[in-house]
Amino acid sequence: MADWHTTVTPPALARLLATARLPEPAAARRPAYRTLAEQIRLLVTEGRLPVGARLPAERELAAALELSRTTVATAYETLRGDGYLHSRRGAGSWTALPEGAPPPGDALHPVPPDEQGRTLDLGVAALPAPQPWLGDAAARAVEQLPCYASGHGHYPTGVPVLREAVARRYTERGLPTTPDQILITTGAMGGLHLLQRALVGRGDRVAVEAPSYAHTLQALRLTGARLVPVPYAYRPGPTGLAAPEGGPSAPEPITRRRADKSRLPEPRWDRQEWQRVLRGAAPRLAYVIPDFHNPTGVLIDEEQRRELLAAARAAGSIVLVDETTAELGWGVPESTPLPRPMAALDRSAQVVTVGSAGKLLWGGLRIGWVRAAPALVRRLASERVYSDVGTPVLDQLIAAELLGAPLPAVRAHQLARLRATAHAFAAALPAHLPGWSFPMPSGGLALWVSTGGLSGAALAHVGEHDGVRIASGNRFGSDGAFEHHIRIPLTVPAATVPAAVERLAVLAARAAAGGRLGPADGAQPLAV
Amino acid sequence: MADWHTTVTPPALARLLATARLPEPAAARRPAYRTLAEQIRLLVTEGRLPVGARLPAERELAAALELSRTTVATAYETLRGDGYLHSRRGAGSWTALPEGAPPPGDALHPVPPDEQGRTLDLGVAALPAPQPWLGDAAARAVEQLPCYASGHGHYPTGVPVLREAVARRYTERGLPTTPDQILITTGAMGGLHLLQRALVGRGDRVAVEAPSYAHTLQALRLTGARLVPVPYAYRPGPTGLAAPEGGPSAPEPITRRRADKSRLPEPRWDRQEWQRVLRGAAPRLAYVIPDFHNPTGVLIDEEQRRELLAAARAAGSIVLVDETTAELGWGVPESTPLPRPMAALDRSAQVVTVGSAGKLLWGGLRIGWVRAAPALVRRLASERVYSDVGTPVLDQLIAAELLGAPLPAVRAHQLARLRATAHAFAAALPAHLPGWSFPMPSGGLALWVSTGGLSGAALAHVGEHDGVRIASGNRFGSDGAFEHHIRIPLTVPAATVPAAVERLAVLAARAAAGGRLGPADGAQPLAV
Repeated sequence: MADWHTTVTPPALARLLATARLPEPAAARRPAYRTLAEQIRLLVTEGRLPVGARLPAERELAAALELSRTTVATAYETLRGDGYLHSRRGAGSWTALPEGAPPPGDALHPVPPDEQGRTLDLGVAALPAPQPWLGDAAARAVEQLPCYASGHGHYPTGVPVLREAVARRYTERGLPTTPDQILITTGAMGGLHLLQRALVGRGDRVAVEAPSYAHTLQALRLTGARLVPVPYAYRPGPTGLAAPEGGPSAPEPITRRRADKSRLPEPRWDRQEWQRVLRGAAPRLAYVIPDFHNPTGVLIDEEQRRELLAAARAAGSIVLVDETTAELGWGVPESTPLPRPMAALDRSAQVVTVGSAGKLLWGGLRIGWVRAAPALVRRLASERVYSDVGTPVLDQLIAAELLGAPLPAVRAHQLARLRATAHAFAAALPAHLPGWSFPMPSGGLALWVSTGGLSGAALAHVGEHDGVRIASGNRFGSDGAFEHHIRIPLTVPAATVPAAVERLAVLAARAAAGGRLGPADGAQPLAV
Repeated sequence: MADWHTTVTPPALARLLATARLPEPAAARRPAYRTLAEQIRLLVTEGRLPVGARLPAERELAAALELSRTTVATAYETLRGDGYLHSRRGAGSWTALPEGAPPPGDALHPVPPDEQGRTLDLGVAALPAPQPWLGDAAARAVEQLPCYASGHGHYPTGVPVLREAVARRYTERGLPTTPDQILITTGAMGGLHLLQRALVGRGDRVAVEAPSYAHTLQALRLTGARLVPVPYAYRPGPTGLAAPEGGPSAPEPITRRRADKSRLPEPRWDRQEWQRVLRGAAPRLAYVIPDFHNPTGVLIDEEQRRELLAAARAAGSIVLVDETTAELGWGVPESTPLPRPMAALDRSAQVVTVGSAGKLLWGGLRIGWVRAAPALVRRLASERVYSDVGTPVLDQLIAAELLGAPLPAVRAHQLARLRATAHAFAAALPAHLPGWSFPMPSGGLALWVSTGGLSGAALAHVGEHDGVRIASGNRFGSDGAFEHHIRIPLTVPAATVPAAVERLAVLAARAAAGGRLGPADGAQPLAV
């Protein structure tokens, strides 16, 4: 077989292994080779070690980890037996996925069921399509297809009706926009990919919120960017739309117990920390999700947006605003005005925005967009000729339909669903997992839950064997941060929430006890 | 405005300028600043100089080109006036596209009309959608949508019904294939993009046919690959399917006149040259288009395929086979068996194949695929989570429909159209442009035409002002090769061919005379 592997050096693997925490008590009982094998497997399944990466030779890794060569050799042999490693004499060993395994790093494939045949996918935060609106819009789009079918079907900037619909929607949201400022992309991720390739070079610094969206962080790492995480500040207060008080608030850990339900810690940008990072690191790019942030659901007010823009302007940084979740304010009363989009507050053309129909409409359409200066839109359109060329026509016509007259009904339908699930989790989690805590957001796709000291990676690891997929917190941070968090998606049906939380409680008990326990042990209290 | 430009060094720009040939007589009459401005503009509109590239300072470029600083300053000023350059004091100058200009490097946007309001787009080689089949398939796909709409709609490897349909089609073509060997991508270009990112590193050598597909060459350059072009050999003989004779044939220029129509030079791989390059350069990848090659239409026989595979295996090179045009054998009699796909002759898992529904079905569907070992398919699926995540569901359902029962009728319809246009060009070109020559292929999307010494870039340049878009030959080669070629697409309607060739003849006369001439001058003979 031809060779197509990239190499992980022994120190790089040692650093990664240090962040791959397994359930602690079990790790202590387990032989060293098994711990090493399980850690490497965890890194692969979580997408932190790429599939197809060449691992160090046994001798080198043994030296780097101060283990015996036999330990490393036995670990590699275990991984080979499970299908997570391929080896060839003279060519080395490289990571792999066993037959039928889902792609790592996300939950886009079916979860393997537990012994009773049950599955629970808490890995992906995406809603089903709104029906009957999607079907109706698709039927109308097919009627328009003949006009487009007589041409070659390539639209690098997007089909005009959708560019117009997206521009109109921005204008409705308080940001006057013309179609030539809009580039239609294959999902928001397609837009982020184009922007990263165009704007970020190897070694460039990129400031990111901590936590931030897992896939963007990983994509930036793959581009060779150096991530500079900027943690949230937390202060007591009502959630969401409150005007900020003067002066910076003292950092407070989000992991504290929900002792006073009415005064949960409210995360917000840490102004001083952002100013320090922008001034000190002068990053090429600041990547932020100010509207119902993923994973926390945080909504940033206009004053904080203005402060960040001023600091970024002074530093010469581009501000890349991810508005994928901007329309998901399920906890915001109709009468409450939302903060204006970042680009509406931008007087120096330093903001580039990415948006998506994937969360409000449907991920299966793969419709996203970039809003930028027309010159940058043209440049990105010219560069995508070397990646996806354009986004399919029919899906653009469907999205244009859905962003028109049906939008208010579609939006009400999807937000009601998120709201019901959020309230169901808020009721069930304190009852079954009293050691866990979370601030209740006013929008977004997920709850960002502190597991009260339990390792989220360990929980995910236990869940993997029990038909439950869990997004562990460290995927949303750098270098093992947020180990004691998980992201719980609000996209599961509300009716399934009580049973889901019961299963989470069983898994948490197992993880705290160090791995798999018999059913009778599931009832033991959390070790936190 | 924030800064997001990459820099072109003075020597790099000097090298590029040396390959940007303008109509010669005009260049001699023109002031130096105008020549320089026109050359830079040509490089931008042909996509050879990226949009948004920072150009050298005037003083530096003047030194590198041995021109006066005033000449460079006036050229930059001219480009600024035309919208091809933006400058800011202290920040430098960078290339741009004027308002309303098409993305460079391809003909995906409308051609600006000439004074009589006429346009002729010979830049893009893509058929309209086959109707009524596309509309019917779309309606059936919409009926299936409810089954998919209840899920999140993300399919990193592809919707199962399409993976199965593609695998079945490979099996029909003589290459047994299972769905887990198929990854559905956003167009063939989406597959090439994923493969390049996974397999090719900065500085890696990639052997390519010369000429080859323009966009892949440019995409490889952007990845940082070092291209090693391997020219075709030419020998007299019937076209297409003939068995190769023993021994290598002496290289013969494709540009020779069509003196003997029955014995046109037949391009084929140069075995000795491929062996020399694979042995000497040990490239990471060999990228080939063996089935009705773009732009030449060449079909490679099985013996040559086997020879290349053996040489690549010895060199340890991956063979990336582009089958985008594999179904387009419009000149092959039904009864003649086609050579088997390269992967069917591969005994050492070194072939990776890219295919597409974009040429036979419709480019607006953006459906392509990769055929590879299941382990590589899983790896690519895990990596696309950071680019397009997946391909839209509905287009996959439509493609699966069209690859089923309607395929023979759709294929016959599209091939008849290509065949009629090929014959129309073969009749009209010798009558109006007797100095031009081309081997008649047995399939593919285009004719690869030698312009008998006329610069293809100059022809494209003249055409740009006259409502005609032309794909000049040097976009299909490296470093200014194939200057005296153009690619003529077979995707225009046959009925429009006589008028198109008449306009080409007028343009050729103008280009030969050094640029724009009055209408009366259009009748003068070609200066070749």
